[in-house]
Amino acid sequence: MTTATGSHDYLRQRALGARQAALQLATSDGGARDAALQAILKALDSERERILAANAADVEAGKALVEQGELGEPLLKRLELREGKYQATREMVRSVIAQPDPLWSTLKATKLDEGLNLYRVSVPIGVIGVIFESRPDALVQIAALCLKSGNAVLLKGGSEAANSNAVLAEVIEMATASVEGIPDGWITLMESREDVKGMLCQEDAIDLIIPRGSPEFAGYIMANTNIPVTGHTDGICHVFVDAAADLDKAVRITVDSKISGVATCCASETLLVHGEIARPFFERVIGDLEAHNVLIRGDERTLELAGDLGALTPVSEQDWSTEYLDYILSVKIVDGAEEAIDHINHYSSHHTDSIVTEDKTTAKRFLLAIDSASVFHNASTRLADGFKFGLGAEVGISTGRLHSRGPVGLEGLTCYKYVLEGSGQTATDFDGEPSRPFLHRSLDAIWSMQANG
Amino acid sequence: MTTATGSHDYLRQRALGARQAALQLATSDGGARDAALQAILKALDSERERILAANAADVEAGKALVEQGELGEPLLKRLELREGKYQATREMVRSVIAQPDPLWSTLKATKLDEGLNLYRVSVPIGVIGVIFESRPDALVQIAALCLKSGNAVLLKGGSEAANSNAVLAEVIEMATASVEGIPDGWITLMESREDVKGMLCQEDAIDLIIPRGSPEFAGYIMANTNIPVTGHTDGICHVFVDAAADLDKAVRITVDSKISGVATCCASETLLVHGEIARPFFERVIGDLEAHNVLIRGDERTLELAGDLGALTPVSEQDWSTEYLDYILSVKIVDGAEEAIDHINHYSSHHTDSIVTEDKTTAKRFLLAIDSASVFHNASTRLADGFKFGLGAEVGISTGRLHSRGPVGLEGLTCYKYVLEGSGQTATDFDGEPSRPFLHRSLDAIWSMQANG
Repeated sequence: MTTATGSHDYLRQRALGARQAALQLATSDGGARDAALQAILKALDSERERILAANAADVEAGKALVEQGELGEPLLKRLELREGKYQATREMVRSVIAQPDPLWSTLKATKLDEGLNLYRVSVPIGVIGVIFESRPDALVQIAALCLKSGNAVLLKGGSEAANSNAVLAEVIEMATASVEGIPDGWITLMESREDVKGMLCQEDAIDLIIPRGSPEFAGYIMANTNIPVTGHTDGICHVFVDAAADLDKAVRITVDSKISGVATCCASETLLVHGEIARPFFERVIGDLEAHNVLIRGDERTLELAGDLGALTPVSEQDWSTEYLDYILSVKIVDGAEEAIDHINHYSSHHTDSIVTEDKTTAKRFLLAIDSASVFHNASTRLADGFKFGLGAEVGISTGRLHSRGPVGLEGLTCYKYVLEGSGQTATDFDGEPSRPFLHRSLDAIWSMQANG
Repeated sequence: MTTATGSHDYLRQRALGARQAALQLATSDGGARDAALQAILKALDSERERILAANAADVEAGKALVEQGELGEPLLKRLELREGKYQATREMVRSVIAQPDPLWSTLKATKLDEGLNLYRVSVPIGVIGVIFESRPDALVQIAALCLKSGNAVLLKGGSEAANSNAVLAEVIEMATASVEGIPDGWITLMESREDVKGMLCQEDAIDLIIPRGSPEFAGYIMANTNIPVTGHTDGICHVFVDAAADLDKAVRITVDSKISGVATCCASETLLVHGEIARPFFERVIGDLEAHNVLIRGDERTLELAGDLGALTPVSEQDWSTEYLDYILSVKIVDGAEEAIDHINHYSSHHTDSIVTEDKTTAKRFLLAIDSASVFHNASTRLADGFKFGLGAEVGISTGRLHSRGPVGLEGLTCYKYVLEGSGQTATDFDGEPSRPFLHRSLDAIWSMQANG
């Protein structure tokens, strides 16, 4: 029975299908999942023209939207699947294949009693709904990560990328349909907002929703579903230049954190500068920032101390909690690391914050006390990324504290279960009369899926 | 400023205080947290009479409720802090102290570049709200686990245990108040339903809510908050006796799973029996179950095959998804492991399910395919418990799939952050012109909190 996209029945049918597919994928062989990823890679080559044509249509429509002021230039750029990005997307799938199988790893093993061994083993989460922004390459990335980790997935992309997404999802579904061990229905593209609404009430069929986008959007999703949600929201990231900073590093990190990817969530929005080093540092960095078209909004002390060095404007209270995603940087002078820590823990979105200092004691204090997913010492905030962290690829960057935090790769798409292999033990053996104590001895053993293991 | 319990202001003030306390606890020394737990242990001794008097008042009031039919006998039993249970509570605190510090462990280390090392280290979740049932010992257990793991906690217990909880929370707060390094406000007892309502909207101050109780209650909490919730709800647990079962083990496990703790969530509610072994198995087990006052509800095949062996009544469709928490067992005959797996994956609450068989291939298939937090082979479902698993103590048993699954101990109360220690690296170093590749080399290193580490 086929029902129309956008109808409640359609979504229900696909979600229940995804649940069935997930149960099968959970016990699928790692080799089968890799073979399916290879098939996707092959299809990305053979269907390249068709995919790029669909993308070109989206980009054309996007240009019109930009002209009408309904779409920002940086978003248009993210929509495009040009030559380099297509290649990068292929490479990303390859890197996911190269990752070790995240499933059925023994995370912990404990001998509870003679002939009673407990294993904590990694398993897929199950069915995951992902709502992502206008980047068609994100569809391929999320699908590849979900497949490798044995999860079924329902996807909803930005409407600006509708043509690209439709062709990509079709190509991926077709490519994997003939691979042995891969169940039908593991991937569904949702095309309408109605589908998303339909998804939110399927708590028996969907285990996790990952909204990528603004905090308001994530908040809307959380308020409208009982399904667990992991927020991948805004990045209000900070660089703190301490009194003991090496000025070369401070300039390089400040500039890179702001301008190397201005529209990314790990770009810095606020620069905190220790008063003692502020003047010499501003003398070196303000020109550099302005040369890159960065507008600087300073607090009172910054304007006083550095007003002669550039076209600074006053910062407002609201700036401290604004994610610009643009060539704007708010700047504040502080009297030490503790003031910087307090400011960051108050205003940060707990994404990524960095200290520049040669003083190791101050650095350790900052790394301990900053309550963020990624805390850096002498490194650009722009390094907060799943690929850069060596996770292969990322499903997003979590600003929540549950399950996974920071860049989320394959491991973040797994949970675990406890496997207990006994020889007839009961609870009464350990708490009845007579009883024996548990051994609770850590085991250096790996749980085997094989009967002879 | 002191405001009254039950007012929105009171809860707001305590939640913000908990957030501040959590930031301090996160950087507290493990020794300080253990010293605070020792102080609790000491206070449990010195304040013993006062605590037991408060508990006696609750039990008296509870008895009246039982007589009026407003409270069940098993719940009254759980309310009592009698001699043995008081001792067990002390032992539990001792076992939490004995656990290794769950904070600042290096979970993974990767060398990204020369002089650029990434560490994933364990940190507390932050502020946790726990709503638990009428067991005053649970208050001590949850408080001890939260303190050891560096989390601030807001607690709400069952109203039947109000006197016991008030005294216990006061004793714990007083005992830890004088311990150096332990911030005020790390523990708050909420006394009213208004407090719980007030908690649900504090998403800036509370990171996780753990409701222990019925699925309906957990559902209510989820529907009324944007704060992440991990469900610790019902246990519809199964024992499957396969054709290749050892009948001695099968009888022992079936009886123990049902009767050794009939009101616990890991007690079994449904028994599935392979048709080939059903008659000889029923001949041995039905008498045993009935001797323990277990009422048996059988499917049609069971009634036909075993109707002569006991006072069996027919099972209804609703039984398969009912958590009895009582001396009732529903029984179904199946034609093999696959039918058992399908039944369990459909009706189970994904808590704990066990297979009894001597066939290792069937056992492995069951352990792989059953989609539950705990999957057992030749062991009683009643072994699903944090203490028995060697976790020291448990905050509950999670039936969700996010963050933690199954018995949740100290580790389940932590998350992690990424610490990146560099020497001036920027994103442009790796993706600009010229650029160098990331090393992504696994490191056998532990992140040190010390400046000279």
